[in-house]
Amino acid sequence: MVLKKEQSFKPLAFSIKLKKGMNHFISVHDVTDINQLVDQALAYKQQPFQDKVLGMNKTIGMLFMNPSMRTRISTQVAARNLGMEVIVFNVDKEGWQLEFADGTVMNGGSSEHVKEAARVMGRYFDVLAIRTFPSLKNRDEDYSESYMQKFVQYAGIPVVSMESATLHPLQSLADIITIREQWQQGGKTTKPKVVMTWAPHVKALPQSVPNSFAQWMCRWNEADLTIVQPEGYELKEDYTAGACIEHDQDKALRDADFVYVKNWSSYRDYGKILSTDASWMITDEKLKATNHAKVMHCLPVRRNLVIADEVLDGPQSIVVEEAGNRVWAAQAVLSEIIG
Amino acid sequence: MVLKKEQSFKPLAFSIKLKKGMNHFISVHDVTDINQLVDQALAYKQQPFQDKVLGMNKTIGMLFMNPSMRTRISTQVAARNLGMEVIVFNVDKEGWQLEFADGTVMNGGSSEHVKEAARVMGRYFDVLAIRTFPSLKNRDEDYSESYMQKFVQYAGIPVVSMESATLHPLQSLADIITIREQWQQGGKTTKPKVVMTWAPHVKALPQSVPNSFAQWMCRWNEADLTIVQPEGYELKEDYTAGACIEHDQDKALRDADFVYVKNWSSYRDYGKILSTDASWMITDEKLKATNHAKVMHCLPVRRNLVIADEVLDGPQSIVVEEAGNRVWAAQAVLSEIIG
Amino acid sequence: MVLKKEQSFKPLAFSIKLKKGMNHFISVHDVTDINQLVDQALAYKQQPFQDKVLGMNKTIGMLFMNPSMRTRISTQVAARNLGMEVIVFNVDKEGWQLEFADGTVMNGGSSEHVKEAARVMGRYFDVLAIRTFPSLKNRDEDYSESYMQKFVQYAGIPVVSMESATLHPLQSLADIITIREQWQQGGKTTKPKVVMTWAPHVKALPQSVPNSFAQWMCRWNEADLTIVQPEGYELKEDYTAGACIEHDQDKALRDADFVYVKNWSSYRDYGKILSTDASWMITDEKLKATNHAKVMHCLPVRRNLVIADEVLDGPQSIVVEEAGNRVWAAQAVLSEIIG
Repeated sequence: MVLKKEQSFKPLAFSIKLKKGMNHFISVHDVTDINQLVDQALAYKQQPFQDKVLGMNKTIGMLFMNPSMRTRISTQVAARNLGMEVIVFNVDKEGWQLEFADGTVMNGGSSEHVKEAARVMGRYFDVLAIRTFPSLKNRDEDYSESYMQKFVQYAGIPVVSMESATLHPLQSLADIITIREQWQQGGKTTKPKVVMTWAPHVKALPQSVPNSFAQWMCRWNEADLTIVQPEGYELKEDYTAGACIEHDQDKALRDADFVYVKNWSSYRDYGKILSTDASWMITDEKLKATNHAKVMHCLPVRRNLVIADEVLDGPQSIVVEEAGNRVWAAQAVLSEIIG
Repeated sequence: MVLKKEQSFKPLAFSIKLKKGMNHFISVHDVTDINQLVDQALAYKQQPFQDKVLGMNKTIGMLFMNPSMRTRISTQVAARNLGMEVIVFNVDKEGWQLEFADGTVMNGGSSEHVKEAARVMGRYFDVLAIRTFPSLKNRDEDYSESYMQKFVQYAGIPVVSMESATLHPLQSLADIITIREQWQQGGKTTKPKVVMTWAPHVKALPQSVPNSFAQWMCRWNEADLTIVQPEGYELKEDYTAGACIEHDQDKALRDADFVYVKNWSSYRDYGKILSTDASWMITDEKLKATNHAKVMHCLPVRRNLVIADEVLDGPQSIVVEEAGNRVWAAQAVLSEIIG
Repeated sequence: MVLKKEQSFKPLAFSIKLKKGMNHFISVHDVTDINQLVDQALAYKQQPFQDKVLGMNKTIGMLFMNPSMRTRISTQVAARNLGMEVIVFNVDKEGWQLEFADGTVMNGGSSEHVKEAARVMGRYFDVLAIRTFPSLKNRDEDYSESYMQKFVQYAGIPVVSMESATLHPLQSLADIITIREQWQQGGKTTKPKVVMTWAPHVKALPQSVPNSFAQWMCRWNEADLTIVQPEGYELKEDYTAGACIEHDQDKALRDADFVYVKNWSSYRDYGKILSTDASWMITDEKLKATNHAKVMHCLPVRRNLVIADEVLDGPQSIVVEEAGNRVWAAQAVLSEIIG
C-alpha cells in the first residue's frame, strides 16, 4: 500500500463517515512510498492495460471549477486504462456557482452549497477528482485549501486533487517519474542536481506547481533541489525546507542536471507580479553552465517569454515526455485508490 | 411492462413512423404501474450491474438546452450501469440555437430547425434524453410543451424528459422511490402525510418540479398530499386534483410525515415572484408540529433562504438520499425503454 | 488498403518521425480507392458492430476549435462502434487559445503553442481528430491549412479532419455514400447528373463543404458534376477541375438526378457576401425541371432561406439519410486508420 489509508484533512464531526480503507490524494503527505508509486507508474507505462479489470463498475467523477487540458485528458486516459467509467463535469460552464462558506444566507450568486454538491457526488461516484484554482487575492483563504478540504470532508469517497489552490500533486508525481526515468536511462547512480527556476510571465499565476514540486522533491530526497527566483518570489517555507534557495539564476544553474522552469506570482506580496525581467527566460546560452541539463516545464508554456524556442525545439527539452508521464502518474494513483 | 407502449404526444401526419414497441418518458401518463417501476429501481439499488448487457450496442444521446448537474450525472451513471453508450451534448454551449416554430424564414439567430436536429438525432441514437426549461414569459407556449413535443414528433426514437418546461418526471419518480423506501424502513403500513410547501427564493423558478411531484403523488395515491403556498402561487389544477390545497403553512405542516420543500414562481401571474416572505423558510421550529417529518428537496437548495442549515445538517433531512435515488429512477426508466 | 499510407502534408525536418504505416484523413488525396471506402461504409451500415474489437485499447481524441453537432456525434458513435475510447475536448471552451505562428514572443492572448499541444496529444491518443474553421479574412492563410498542417506535423499520430479551413472530407465521403446508395436503390447503371447549387444565406460561410464535395466528386468520376453559382462565387479551380461550371440555376438544374444545395461566401472577394438573391432558394417549383432529383444538404440548413419547407418536408429530400450516413463514413475511415 503506497497511499496512506487515512484522510488528507481532519473531518468535522458531522461529516459522513468514510468507509474503512478509503483515502485521498491531495498532497505528498497522502503517499507513504514515493518510489513504489513511481515503480507502479513506470510499470503501467510498459503495460497500460494490465489492470483493466481493476476499475470495472467503478466511476470517477472529474469536476472542473477551472479549465484544464493535460490534467483532464491524462486522468481520463488513466482511468479508462484501468477500466473505470469517467464522467467529466465542468462545474464552471455546465453547472452553477457553488457556495463554500458556512452559515451564509444564500440569496446571491451561488445556487448550491458544497455540502450538498459534495455529498451528492459521493452518491454518484466511487472516486471524485477536483480541479480548483486560488483567487490569488486572499492568501489565508487560498492556503487554507478550504474548497478541496470541503470536498474531502463531505464527499465520503476518495478525493483526488487535479490541482488545488496551492498544490498540484499529480503534476509533481509525473515530474519525479520523469526525473527518475531520465536519470536511470543515463545510467546515473549519484543524486542529480535539480534547479527550479522562476521565469517571467504576463499573468499572475498560482504557486501550486512550484509549491508542490518543492514539497515532493524535498520529501523524495533522491535529488538535490535548488530553487532560484528574484527577491520577493520566495515560496512558503513549509514546502521548501531542505532545498537550497538562491536569487542568482546563473549561479544556481551551474552544473544542474535538470532545470525545472516555472513562473509563479509572489507569495509575500500575495498574487502580485513583482518582476517581468526578461533575462530570467531560459535560453541555450543560460543552459551552457549546466551539466547538459534536461529542461522541464509542466505546460502550457509561453514560448520566447518563459523558455526560448531554441530550447523547446532542441534536444535538452523533455517537456513532452514529462506531459506524457502524466497518464502513468494518474494511473498509479487511481490504481492505489481503487485497488 | 411498466411504461406504456405508445407515444406521449400525438404524432403529426408527416412525422416518422415509430417502430412498434417504442415509447417515451415525458410524464406520469407514460407509466402504467408506478410501484412496479419503483420495485425495479430499488432492485437496481441493490444490484446496480444486474442488467449490464441490456444496453450493449445501444446509445443514449443526452441533449441539454439548459444546465443540469444531478440529472445529467445520475442519468449518465444509470445508462452506463445498463451497459449503454452515452453521448452528452450541450446544445446551448457546444451547438447552436434551434428553431422550433413552423414556417419561419430562418434568417435570424437560429441555425437549425428542430425538424432536422431531431430527425438526425434519431439516426444517431437509440434513446434521446432532452433537458429544456420554460421561458416563464409565455404561459401558453410553455404549457404546450412544444419543444419536448417536437422532439417526440420528429426523432422517431424513444424520448426521455430530463425536465421540460412544465414537468420533471425523473425527479418525481426518485421522490416516490425515496418516500416508499423511507416509509417502509420505518415499518409503516398506513398512508404517510406528505406536505409540499412553497418556500422563498430570489429567482423566478419553473413550476416543473412541483407540478410533476403533485401529478405523480396524486396518481400514485399511496400518500395523502397537501400542498401549501401563499395566495397566488397555486399550481395548475390539472396536476393537483386530489391534493389538499392550503395557504397556512403551520396548519399544513401539522402531523406531516414528509415535508417536500420547493420554490416556484406564480402560475397565475405567470412567472412572477409574488412573495419573498422569509417566514416560509423551513426551520427546526417549523418542523416541531410535524410527525418527525423527513425533509425533501430536489436540489440545488439555497441554504438559509429555502431551508435552514439546522434542518439540512440535521437528522430529518433526506435530501442527499433523495438525490442518490435519481440514479435508480433513471436506470429503471431506461431499462423499461430499451428492455 | 484504401487510405494512403503516407502523410497529408510534408513534414518539416524537426517534426516527430511518424511510425511506419500511419496515415491521415485530411482530403481526398489520402484515399486510394473511394469505392472501396464506400463499400466498407455500407457494410458497417448493415452490421455496425462487426469490428468492435478493432479499436480495443485505442483512444481517439476529438479536438474542437469550433462548434460541431453532426460531425462530433457521428464520429463519436463511429469510434464506439469500433470499440475505441473517445475523449472530446472543446479547445475553444474548455481549454485556452493556441498559438500557431512560429517564433512569436507569446506575451499576448495565446497560452500554448500548437507544437506542445499537438505533441502532447500525440502522447495521449492513438488518433487525433481536429475541427477548425477559416478566418474568412486572410485567404492565403486559410488556404495554407496551416492549423491542420501543424497538427499533422507535430502530433506524430494519424490526424483526421473533422472539417478544416477549406475542406470537409468526412462530409464528402458521406455524400458519395448517399449518392451511390440512392442511385443503386433506383437500379440505375448510368452516371447520375449531380448539380451543386449555391443558395442564399445571412452569414458568410466557409467554402470547405463545396470545395470538398467538388474535389471528391471530380476524383470519384462516377457522376457528372455541375456547379452553379452567381458571378463571383466561383470556387477555387483546383477543386472544380472536371466539373461543368454554370451561372444560370434553372439551366443547370435541368435533368438533374441530385441537387446538392449549399451556401458559401466568395473565394474571389474572399469571405464576402456578394448576393442574397432569394430566387436562388430551392423550391418545389425549381425542382420541376429536374429528373425528380433527390435534394441533399450537409446541414444545418436554414429553412425557407436556403431550401423551402415544402422541399425539406417532401419526398425528394434525403438530407436526413445523408446526415445518418456520416456515421458510416467516419467508421470506414477510422477502421482504415487503426486497422
